[in-house]
Amino acid sequence: MLITLTTDFGLKDPFVGVMKGVIARINPQAQVIDLTHGVPAQDTLAAAFVLRHSIEYFPRGTVHMVVVDPGVGSSRRPLLIEGNGHFFIGPDNGVLSLAVGDAPPARIVQLSNAAYQLHPASATFHGRDIFAPAAAYLSRGIPPAELGEPVSSFVKVTLPKPIRAAKTLLGEIIYIDKFGNLFTNIEEGDLRELGRDQLDIVLRDLRIHGVVANYAAGGSGGIIAVLNSWGLLEIAANRANAAHRIGARIGDKVEVIFGKGEA
Amino acid sequence: MLITLTTDFGLKDPFVGVMKGVIARINPQAQVIDLTHGVPAQDTLAAAFVLRHSIEYFPRGTVHMVVVDPGVGSSRRPLLIEGNGHFFIGPDNGVLSLAVGDAPPARIVQLSNAAYQLHPASATFHGRDIFAPAAAYLSRGIPPAELGEPVSSFVKVTLPKPIRAAKTLLGEIIYIDKFGNLFTNIEEGDLRELGRDQLDIVLRDLRIHGVVANYAAGGSGGIIAVLNSWGLLEIAANRANAAHRIGARIGDKVEVIFGKGEA
Amino acid sequence: MLITLTTDFGLKDPFVGVMKGVIARINPQAQVIDLTHGVPAQDTLAAAFVLRHSIEYFPRGTVHMVVVDPGVGSSRRPLLIEGNGHFFIGPDNGVLSLAVGDAPPARIVQLSNAAYQLHPASATFHGRDIFAPAAAYLSRGIPPAELGEPVSSFVKVTLPKPIRAAKTLLGEIIYIDKFGNLFTNIEEGDLRELGRDQLDIVLRDLRIHGVVANYAAGGSGGIIAVLNSWGLLEIAANRANAAHRIGARIGDKVEVIFGKGEA
Repeated sequence: MLITLTTDFGLKDPFVGVMKGVIARINPQAQVIDLTHGVPAQDTLAAAFVLRHSIEYFPRGTVHMVVVDPGVGSSRRPLLIEGNGHFFIGPDNGVLSLAVGDAPPARIVQLSNAAYQLHPASATFHGRDIFAPAAAYLSRGIPPAELGEPVSSFVKVTLPKPIRAAKTLLGEIIYIDKFGNLFTNIEEGDLRELGRDQLDIVLRDLRIHGVVANYAAGGSGGIIAVLNSWGLLEIAANRANAAHRIGARIGDKVEVIFGKGEA
Repeated sequence: MLITLTTDFGLKDPFVGVMKGVIARINPQAQVIDLTHGVPAQDTLAAAFVLRHSIEYFPRGTVHMVVVDPGVGSSRRPLLIEGNGHFFIGPDNGVLSLAVGDAPPARIVQLSNAAYQLHPASATFHGRDIFAPAAAYLSRGIPPAELGEPVSSFVKVTLPKPIRAAKTLLGEIIYIDKFGNLFTNIEEGDLRELGRDQLDIVLRDLRIHGVVANYAAGGSGGIIAVLNSWGLLEIAANRANAAHRIGARIGDKVEVIFGKGEA
Repeated sequence: MLITLTTDFGLKDPFVGVMKGVIARINPQAQVIDLTHGVPAQDTLAAAFVLRHSIEYFPRGTVHMVVVDPGVGSSRRPLLIEGNGHFFIGPDNGVLSLAVGDAPPARIVQLSNAAYQLHPASATFHGRDIFAPAAAYLSRGIPPAELGEPVSSFVKVTLPKPIRAAKTLLGEIIYIDKFGNLFTNIEEGDLRELGRDQLDIVLRDLRIHGVVANYAAGGSGGIIAVLNSWGLLEIAANRANAAHRIGARIGDKVEVIFGKGEA
């Protein structure tokens, strides 16, 4: 059975490797895939967002373990959630919530059964002592209900939604990838009724006309708008880093103006 | 069957992890090795160079997938090339060409069979929607010819060659590794007829006498020349970063002067 | 059989991937886990420290390969050490010594059998040409004694020990993780006899009162002291980077003052 790992640990330290050791000791047959360890430190919303756009590419029944956990060792609960065709393991701080989706999950378990934890469990590294063992035992066939006691709710985070007016849509930048591409919270469906060419996009003092088919349409270094692989409106630069070029940051407003654009 | 991945994606985002999910869904038995995801953004020549010096260390028949793809979604073709004892999958922009080598490849296939792609295929992430599925199906035993239609040529890149004169060889720095070691395009064979000690190497205002056996020969922080593990003349600093120390960059000229060196 | 890799190679270059190719060619069944490739360049003490705190989380009999090797190609010996329930492979420069522990190891072998190396072995990349093949052959069942000749000693490094006085303990910062948490060389046992609240910790011009249970106890951005997952006294900042905030560096002194703390 497949386990994915998503953390803000980076790869400088042995923390990710040690979690894989813990998993291998419990279930030598487990297959582990790093989703990413590059979530910004303590950024639970980014982790939730990344996971939500990734799980559909994994086999149903995959165990997705997320450790972005500023509250480690405090009263926040360690959870296992079964929902949306997958298993999710992580702290109850919202990181799992966008991937679980809006439908009520099939099961929520607080990971309270000490028989499936390392001892002594440290107060600063539940990834190693609680979450990795839970993922490994689950992947080995231990029933979810064995891992702890059922609970009825879990913490949810919400991404900001674009604000719709008569002829405009006001969104914002919610993620910036390694290439400096600017992901907005405006989805393909938000734009579908309008023609792609009959809109202007305004970001800071920049006005982009229309949505093009791919990066190469931008000429050399040109700033463009595309619909990206997560179905989101994205501001990018052909063969260049749009974030650096524009000086854009997460939270910057992006306005879409429908109809004939004026300069 | 083994699949290697070479990209400029970095590890900050979930892009690499998602490609592995796609592969696992199609062929759970596939073994995936990251060659590197640290190719500089859009640097197709660096990707081609790195792959060319790596494939001999993998089993014959390995599937090498390369996604350094600034033209993604445009008219550039997605290819599978069978040659040099390996399979290569990636965009037709030269990234595969140095590893394929000079002999005509056994087969070139344009990955046009939509039955072996994800749908809808995005215009910005063919690594996920076209290349990873192709690698996974190939590793599962789908014959190459099934994945698309045969084509007769592919784009090649060429590394700069050193220029030979009577008593000099004029090369350049073509790669800088994580340690700041400076890889030149001058090969061991270029130097073989001359004695290693009877040459001087000039880089910027620096003159290095002779080629030493290993880094430790450089004393503490000393700048030296060695023949490196890729068979290339390399300028390095013992326990230090030669690129930082010299201020050297890719493209800097490196002159080898044969015969008795003068200070 | 499991092989872990610990290096200072980073992930920018294909060096780690190539070592995995070498292993896969020799033993396709080997399972490889990256412990970390983020050891600071040439920092043998950091590598030794990281390995020492990691091996207990891996199955007994795991092969731990460490390549932090500034003396590569020189007279330093390539070793296999069997001890502490694990196998260790790497250069004889101390990187293996903290994990091997104080008890005499069961076996020390100099990796001198050329039949289990790549040829020609380069003078700059023994990770690829000597250590990875040794790890792979060992994991395939080749007896350790086959890989070379027995030797009787190996190089040891020592971490600085805290200095104990009547009412103080003088330690230092020995590791800084990705989050900017400051690991000291003061162990839980050093503090056990004293109450956690009856001590002050002084670092630069900062005075911290007591040891708290977890990061969240620090309020927003507060600087705190905790006992971390390696059993060490750690200075941290809740949801912030203590190293940046304090301007702390490895080697900085940390003084613990027992008894009633004065401001």
